[in-house]
Amino acid sequence: MSAPHTCSAAVMVGADRPVEIRHFSTPELEPGGVLLETLFSEVCGTDVHLSHGRLAGVPYPIIPGHVSVGRVLAVNGAPRDVDGRPVRVGATVTFLDVAETCHACWFCLVAKTPNRCPKRRVYGVTYSAEEGLYGGWSQRIYLKPGVSILELPATLTPERVIAGGCALPTAIHAVDTARIQLGDRVLVQGAGPVGLSAATLALLSGAGAVYVVERHEVRLAMAREFGVDEAIALGAAGSSSHVDRVLELTEGRGVDVTIEATGVPGAVKDGIHMTRDGGRYVIVGHYTDHGEVGINPHTEINRKHLEIRGVWGVDFSHFHRMLRILDRHGAKVAGGRGWEHMISRAYGLHEVNQALSDVETGRIVKGLVQPR
Amino acid sequence: MSAPHTCSAAVMVGADRPVEIRHFSTPELEPGGVLLETLFSEVCGTDVHLSHGRLAGVPYPIIPGHVSVGRVLAVNGAPRDVDGRPVRVGATVTFLDVAETCHACWFCLVAKTPNRCPKRRVYGVTYSAEEGLYGGWSQRIYLKPGVSILELPATLTPERVIAGGCALPTAIHAVDTARIQLGDRVLVQGAGPVGLSAATLALLSGAGAVYVVERHEVRLAMAREFGVDEAIALGAAGSSSHVDRVLELTEGRGVDVTIEATGVPGAVKDGIHMTRDGGRYVIVGHYTDHGEVGINPHTEINRKHLEIRGVWGVDFSHFHRMLRILDRHGAKVAGGRGWEHMISRAYGLHEVNQALSDVETGRIVKGLVQPR
Amino acid sequence: MSAPHTCSAAVMVGADRPVEIRHFSTPELEPGGVLLETLFSEVCGTDVHLSHGRLAGVPYPIIPGHVSVGRVLAVNGAPRDVDGRPVRVGATVTFLDVAETCHACWFCLVAKTPNRCPKRRVYGVTYSAEEGLYGGWSQRIYLKPGVSILELPATLTPERVIAGGCALPTAIHAVDTARIQLGDRVLVQGAGPVGLSAATLALLSGAGAVYVVERHEVRLAMAREFGVDEAIALGAAGSSSHVDRVLELTEGRGVDVTIEATGVPGAVKDGIHMTRDGGRYVIVGHYTDHGEVGINPHTEINRKHLEIRGVWGVDFSHFHRMLRILDRHGAKVAGGRGWEHMISRAYGLHEVNQALSDVETGRIVKGLVQPR
Amino acid sequence: MSAPHTCSAAVMVGADRPVEIRHFSTPELEPGGVLLETLFSEVCGTDVHLSHGRLAGVPYPIIPGHVSVGRVLAVNGAPRDVDGRPVRVGATVTFLDVAETCHACWFCLVAKTPNRCPKRRVYGVTYSAEEGLYGGWSQRIYLKPGVSILELPATLTPERVIAGGCALPTAIHAVDTARIQLGDRVLVQGAGPVGLSAATLALLSGAGAVYVVERHEVRLAMAREFGVDEAIALGAAGSSSHVDRVLELTEGRGVDVTIEATGVPGAVKDGIHMTRDGGRYVIVGHYTDHGEVGINPHTEINRKHLEIRGVWGVDFSHFHRMLRILDRHGAKVAGGRGWEHMISRAYGLHEVNQALSDVETGRIVKGLVQPR
Repeated sequence: MSAPHTCSAAVMVGADRPVEIRHFSTPELEPGGVLLETLFSEVCGTDVHLSHGRLAGVPYPIIPGHVSVGRVLAVNGAPRDVDGRPVRVGATVTFLDVAETCHACWFCLVAKTPNRCPKRRVYGVTYSAEEGLYGGWSQRIYLKPGVSILELPATLTPERVIAGGCALPTAIHAVDTARIQLGDRVLVQGAGPVGLSAATLALLSGAGAVYVVERHEVRLAMAREFGVDEAIALGAAGSSSHVDRVLELTEGRGVDVTIEATGVPGAVKDGIHMTRDGGRYVIVGHYTDHGEVGINPHTEINRKHLEIRGVWGVDFSHFHRMLRILDRHGAKVAGGRGWEHMISRAYGLHEVNQALSDVETGRIVKGLVQPR
Repeated sequence: MSAPHTCSAAVMVGADRPVEIRHFSTPELEPGGVLLETLFSEVCGTDVHLSHGRLAGVPYPIIPGHVSVGRVLAVNGAPRDVDGRPVRVGATVTFLDVAETCHACWFCLVAKTPNRCPKRRVYGVTYSAEEGLYGGWSQRIYLKPGVSILELPATLTPERVIAGGCALPTAIHAVDTARIQLGDRVLVQGAGPVGLSAATLALLSGAGAVYVVERHEVRLAMAREFGVDEAIALGAAGSSSHVDRVLELTEGRGVDVTIEATGVPGAVKDGIHMTRDGGRYVIVGHYTDHGEVGINPHTEINRKHLEIRGVWGVDFSHFHRMLRILDRHGAKVAGGRGWEHMISRAYGLHEVNQALSDVETGRIVKGLVQPR
Repeated sequence: MSAPHTCSAAVMVGADRPVEIRHFSTPELEPGGVLLETLFSEVCGTDVHLSHGRLAGVPYPIIPGHVSVGRVLAVNGAPRDVDGRPVRVGATVTFLDVAETCHACWFCLVAKTPNRCPKRRVYGVTYSAEEGLYGGWSQRIYLKPGVSILELPATLTPERVIAGGCALPTAIHAVDTARIQLGDRVLVQGAGPVGLSAATLALLSGAGAVYVVERHEVRLAMAREFGVDEAIALGAAGSSSHVDRVLELTEGRGVDVTIEATGVPGAVKDGIHMTRDGGRYVIVGHYTDHGEVGINPHTEINRKHLEIRGVWGVDFSHFHRMLRILDRHGAKVAGGRGWEHMISRAYGLHEVNQALSDVETGRIVKGLVQPR
Repeated sequence: MSAPHTCSAAVMVGADRPVEIRHFSTPELEPGGVLLETLFSEVCGTDVHLSHGRLAGVPYPIIPGHVSVGRVLAVNGAPRDVDGRPVRVGATVTFLDVAETCHACWFCLVAKTPNRCPKRRVYGVTYSAEEGLYGGWSQRIYLKPGVSILELPATLTPERVIAGGCALPTAIHAVDTARIQLGDRVLVQGAGPVGLSAATLALLSGAGAVYVVERHEVRLAMAREFGVDEAIALGAAGSSSHVDRVLELTEGRGVDVTIEATGVPGAVKDGIHMTRDGGRYVIVGHYTDHGEVGINPHTEINRKHLEIRGVWGVDFSHFHRMLRILDRHGAKVAGGRGWEHMISRAYGLHEVNQALSDVETGRIVKGLVQPR
């Protein structure tokens, strides 16, 4: 354990360089500021992208870890959470990683897409470690005034909330956009945390059937444990066996709704072919640039009468609803194992390089960071 | 003029073969059937595609001409139009080219996309000339029982209705799908009949600005005459001058809504770049297969938070609303010249090969067929 | 059992007169016609209204029973069901009670509200017994050509399907219209078959909480058995204890979505008060006229920024999705008792007067008719 | 003219008391604050309600005048407008009257109805004159830091913008909510500034026809001058002649969309009868409480399959789009007389009691306040 006024954090110093442990002083709190003791943060696919320098404009060195759960160590003044409750020392809270959305620009006020606000910043991604403790791979996290905080209800454990993590609100955004109706057949491409969350939400939404296509066996097995109707192995290169199987399951028409959560350009083409005419196709997995895919506007969009939607990030409503969804449904998913069944293992601060490697190779589904 | 019980029609006998004039007997009417004297039909881009065999499953020989206006010569029984009025001999009518939609299959009843009904057939496209007079490039048209007919209101001339033709209901479908709000900036790619109709509808919808990008000068000039805010020449190969200009007009963000009406795959990529983050992109111009375009799912869809919609064909509601729109707004468009200003010239039956060539080369905007 | 070519049916001969058993000859089948042996029909609140003459334009005498399940006894020709499968003798099927929708009028084609088509007729309601066997309280049912038929999948029992009955597709329509999102809190007013179905669908849709307000204790108990978060007794006349309770459960704001399924005008006023500002209020329970309620447009609609939607009847899509929903989710509802737990008891043809009384007094939730 | 550091304002001191002229010191500007010289403010129906004490929680004395146009006299720091431009001394600007929306509460972030945010305050309505110059009936207006400001484009005169005033963004919100499609027939009830603006926007949206029902002859005449298809006099008490006329114009079915802008409870019942089955009914005129109206949930909502929407206030997007709409379309409305044709006359500060009386009695359509 660090001395009272210092703490350790895992710092990503640049592209393709090992994460290092560094020590930081804990900050003075501004009025409205909050200091957390980190209980859990997570390792997600974005962290792997960050470790390879694949996102533009990242101010290395950074402390990764965007979504986290912590215990309030100190507050300055009387900050309140979004439900209007005082943020009390000792309370267990989580917070929206997206901060500083301006609520004053054209994107925020006119286009109503605050997820495209140029001023928004993201904990664990767009703050430099030189600015402060703005990431979850740290024993302490500093919440600036105005960060959207939520106290966990007594019925929700920190483990269950971090199992939702950053993937669940993203999946809520995707599933909302997909407008799943009771009885719709839904395909999810990819069973990483976002895909698995989307598939589970589709099950919770009363879909008529939920299918998953995925490459890694550990993730196929996990999808089955979460109750999907069929988890289909991605065909080997050049094979469309998975496409054939989905068409077979759907009278040759394809599913009503497909949610892409792979980040592989070719999956978009595949996915369109597995979606019915007049269906909906939601792209949520392309968080970084993996190049182009050839699309035929006639056969694949126009004649198909298809709707394609890109979903970028989340706003606070998705985050707020995450807690309500976990509180109401989180215990019963995965055959009663609970949402935390998605967690493969927890890593200490000194193990995060291993964690990044495990996520990158698909050896695990979801890894936590427990910075004690 | 033909003898009373015979008539002439222009027949497309196969791919890349000249259209021929043939003579037909006029048919006995089934109960509910209607025989029309053709006043006007049209030559549209689809007819050019048909002449080159680019549509699958076309039962050559066919009589082209899908949307037409005619005078009722004979009826059997007491057919009524969609507004419930008797179809009277001597009345001037038009009809939806899409017939035989089954209203009994999964697409019609469950997916509610009758435009994807496998039983639907299309006058001028999917009926063989051996079946009968099912196309408008003919002195007579036979309307089977169940075809959706509309009598023209006294305030609408046949010329104004055929100026709408097949392009206008298609454009209505596209503009509905684009959900233009008052004040939105709208880009239309392509100023053929569909694009020009879409641009005019966007103007009528209270758009904040309407821009058109187009290759042919005659169409750029026409777009200006219809009142668009700016008609922008497509840059030469490799130039993105048109993209630059649209971004300059929109504070670098791009328009709120883009409607693609070109049929050129590369236009889709261009168009996405001219559309703002969180905007809407509607593809209506890819009626035939012109191959693929490379799309980057990250930069061009996901991070853009983009909505892409393919629009295939029309249903009767679009056709019905076409008459109401023409009746209310048709006189004032094009600076008071009226919707018929879109018509470049009329061709007799013997001139349809010339008409096809004129459309293909972009020498005209819209050509009529007047089969007297 | 009747002789081979005759059958018995329960006939409602007029308002406030006992239902009588009459004997009918089984009809000759038209091409495309189908004759069913009735396995189950049902007694619903509409049948009580019919027994009191509360619906306009009912051609007494009628054979009630709109939604039914039967076994195919005979077919003429090769009719197909909506999924395209041949309707085979011996198969177990159900059918949409709404027939003869014209698909040719303004309501069907332009307004796209076939549920308001003036030509639509309803089995068990708007056909006279003098026209034939057009109701389910009969040993035989005649399905006219064009009736929308669905064969039951092997995994669905007739009991489970009739437990859905007419209430479930109506509830699907209401729940679709309510646009429930994952995590929304939903209130259902009334726990008759429609209300109980709506509450169960809200649970299946991933609602954050589902509350029911209801007068009869037997229905409150049933709602609890189907798993609602809280079943709240309607306050005695003049008491708003149920309103107070819902507000207490929702931080004083009210629920996100309310579905009215009572048929009591005053419930609309109550329900608006239990719905949050900017929420959605769906009225599906007012199938007959029970008079007015005073509504304050300022406080109850305008300042509340409220959305109110009336939902009338169903179209085939709701019926089709009913089978998919029952097939996927029907076994697990009501704590694993299955959808058929909604059935209170089955009545023979001679017991239907008792059945009507039991429904009217709220002694049962849902009664079947088993016309053996 | 006042001395440099003082100014005059018209102050509403309480319910049913005459407005008085008082003198104020001009304030020191906080960082980000802006001081305006008022060019125009307006007198709207809300001001009449305020003068009678009909709104709850108004902190009299107040300086009325919510929407205004002014010239920048001074700024502190470098405030920017919503389009990102610096707010320069000498520029002509307008601003959203709704300020202090918190962007941090459940209504702002989760329900996304900032128009229901409990912290929002409104210039001219919910600020006390003791707090400062927060209303437009004043020679100076103080814009607090964070107020949403827009500089007028060079092509827009202050007169045209104030002619839009508070009514136009409200009408934009209502028309958006009504989702008018090209060709829809639209009825507007009431031709005060909101109704007249809604009717004009419906015309700009490509409606198939726009009808207005109104009591006062001066407003009927104005509606005709703005180009509605028919301006129909409200029937005398007990007469439904206006309802009969609308049904006659719409084949007995009623219009597709009705927008209520009267504030009279009975108009809601009337309006529902003039709207077709499956249509949309938007209530925007009930800004204050005028009591109840009896509504029959069966015949007037449920069986009608009706959608009813209450629209409360505006958000910044409506205000931003107002300028774009005025800029693009403002000159051509009212037969080329421009939006400012809606202005009946301008009043000096000493004449505002007369202005209130003129609005209340319907002698004028729209009155300005010009506080020189």
